[in-house]
Amino acid sequence: MSEGPTTPDDLGLQLERASAGDRGALARLISVLERGGSASTSLERRLRVRPGSSYTVGITGAPGAGKSTLVSTLLGEIIEEPGQQVALLAVDPSSPLSRGALLGDRVRMQAHTASPEVFIRSMASRGHLGGLAMATRSARRLLEHCGWPLTLIETVGVGQVELDVASATDTVIVVLNPGWGDEVQANKAGLMEVADIFVINKADKAGLEATRRDLEGALASLPPERRPQVLETIATEGKGAGALWQAIKDHRAAITASGELGRRRLAQVRSELRGMVDAVLADRVQRLFAAEEVDGRILAISEGRLDMAEAGEQMLALLYDQVNHSTTT
Amino acid sequence: MSEGPTTPDDLGLQLERASAGDRGALARLISVLERGGSASTSLERRLRVRPGSSYTVGITGAPGAGKSTLVSTLLGEIIEEPGQQVALLAVDPSSPLSRGALLGDRVRMQAHTASPEVFIRSMASRGHLGGLAMATRSARRLLEHCGWPLTLIETVGVGQVELDVASATDTVIVVLNPGWGDEVQANKAGLMEVADIFVINKADKAGLEATRRDLEGALASLPPERRPQVLETIATEGKGAGALWQAIKDHRAAITASGELGRRRLAQVRSELRGMVDAVLADRVQRLFAAEEVDGRILAISEGRLDMAEAGEQMLALLYDQVNHSTTT
Repeated sequence: MSEGPTTPDDLGLQLERASAGDRGALARLISVLERGGSASTSLERRLRVRPGSSYTVGITGAPGAGKSTLVSTLLGEIIEEPGQQVALLAVDPSSPLSRGALLGDRVRMQAHTASPEVFIRSMASRGHLGGLAMATRSARRLLEHCGWPLTLIETVGVGQVELDVASATDTVIVVLNPGWGDEVQANKAGLMEVADIFVINKADKAGLEATRRDLEGALASLPPERRPQVLETIATEGKGAGALWQAIKDHRAAITASGELGRRRLAQVRSELRGMVDAVLADRVQRLFAAEEVDGRILAISEGRLDMAEAGEQMLALLYDQVNHSTTT
Repeated sequence: MSEGPTTPDDLGLQLERASAGDRGALARLISVLERGGSASTSLERRLRVRPGSSYTVGITGAPGAGKSTLVSTLLGEIIEEPGQQVALLAVDPSSPLSRGALLGDRVRMQAHTASPEVFIRSMASRGHLGGLAMATRSARRLLEHCGWPLTLIETVGVGQVELDVASATDTVIVVLNPGWGDEVQANKAGLMEVADIFVINKADKAGLEATRRDLEGALASLPPERRPQVLETIATEGKGAGALWQAIKDHRAAITASGELGRRRLAQVRSELRGMVDAVLADRVQRLFAAEEVDGRILAISEGRLDMAEAGEQMLALLYDQVNHSTTT
């Protein structure tokens, strides 16, 4: 992995290149966002939302549901449209060991990778999950800034972090299989809440009808305008990918017309801003408690020379000093 | 529930009374800590650790393991010792609905409640789990301040919060049953890490030998001085409570002699201080994001007039203002 640009001048140059279509520059800038730190912040400062210029689609589901194959066939459908371009961020929060499997799945995407209409990038965890979620959101904004009109964000797993990442998009697709699978069943309520489109992939497997009935029964309680579409696909045979792309376009048109898209975008920005503030504070508290100044206070409390509430105020005051002295970075 | 004292003068008076043995005053002060806010902070400021004056025992396990009955018989054993006094904080983080069950279990403790050697108090969640954990730790310090030499903290459940609460004590007891139970099995690694004493309660049930073998096999990898004792009890018949009380006293003597107790106390103080700082910051961020000043920034970002990193810095600066103006409360 290259170190990538780190000086402000360099970042500006790379951003210009990436905006002009240089995919190497784009990849290097995403690495900067993944690494975090001051170079990442400098880059963030140059990125602006370009209202109305791009659209994002989140795709999530349990491991083994066939998401990668489905996304691969979906990419094929999308770039068949003249002038259409699409970027894919494949987010894998699992351990480095299983990352090989993801990369293996990606091999069949290499055909797309060669085409100028597609940009594919795996986002892997370099530290905590929250950091990965932040880097993914920043990468999405970078892609928008550089003029990519459509970004797919694929996450592996249906835990809270994966749902948070996938649901910070304009259209959210949840992929499941006939028989649901334990992991999906356990998170049913959360999935119902975020999904705009349900895809039952591997629709040739046993249990399709029961799963569809079960799913539609659960969805019946939602008001019609919020009720997700349910599609069936057999991704390994390319079946249903065209209908899925059409469903995405229909959903986009519907939420654009209703004003729901605008509300979602505001909620996305709010959530991202909150995530950024939380992450900075968590980092500062972490560093504060690793500093030697804390040890003396802890000893003083345990010997009865200082009360806990007063010590808490002192720690917050130290934190304020940090905040005050770091606003220039 | 009475409102309890809220003015500083009143708090001081109640604290004097509670220290002189007034249990009504003690109960009212715990209510102040449960409610949180400025009265709670004022009270906190009057509490000091009194080194060497008290000891805490945490007891945790899955619902239905028979903890309440076990604790009830243990209380009986403890107060048979001349001059011994003991307080019990029974922490129930579950929903209000199941709180009835806990209170039902407590009925058999009423005999103890009438005795001046025992103080029993249920700590129920008034808000988020973190708040309950903080209030419990504060209540423990209040009990120490008021001269209670021994506090038992019982938590229901083996989730992370329950483990955190129970393990912020000097001796940690984990209660399980023959056959383990799914909930305990799933958290085995975490329980191994915190337990000083394992109790297999309902030892007359089938599966005792297999559970003991399984448990001792898992513990064999620990160094001898850190290997928890494994006891068997039949709490409903009062069997084993005496041996459990002896095991607690042995563990206390061992960690006092080895210096481990001192290290644990410092770690407890560190963790409590960190929890306090985290809670204050979380509360301030929450209030900040509920304020109108945020909405304008969110709109500016979504219209491309402000970048996310700059907005994040502005939010942190607003937070600093809050911190700066609230140090007098």
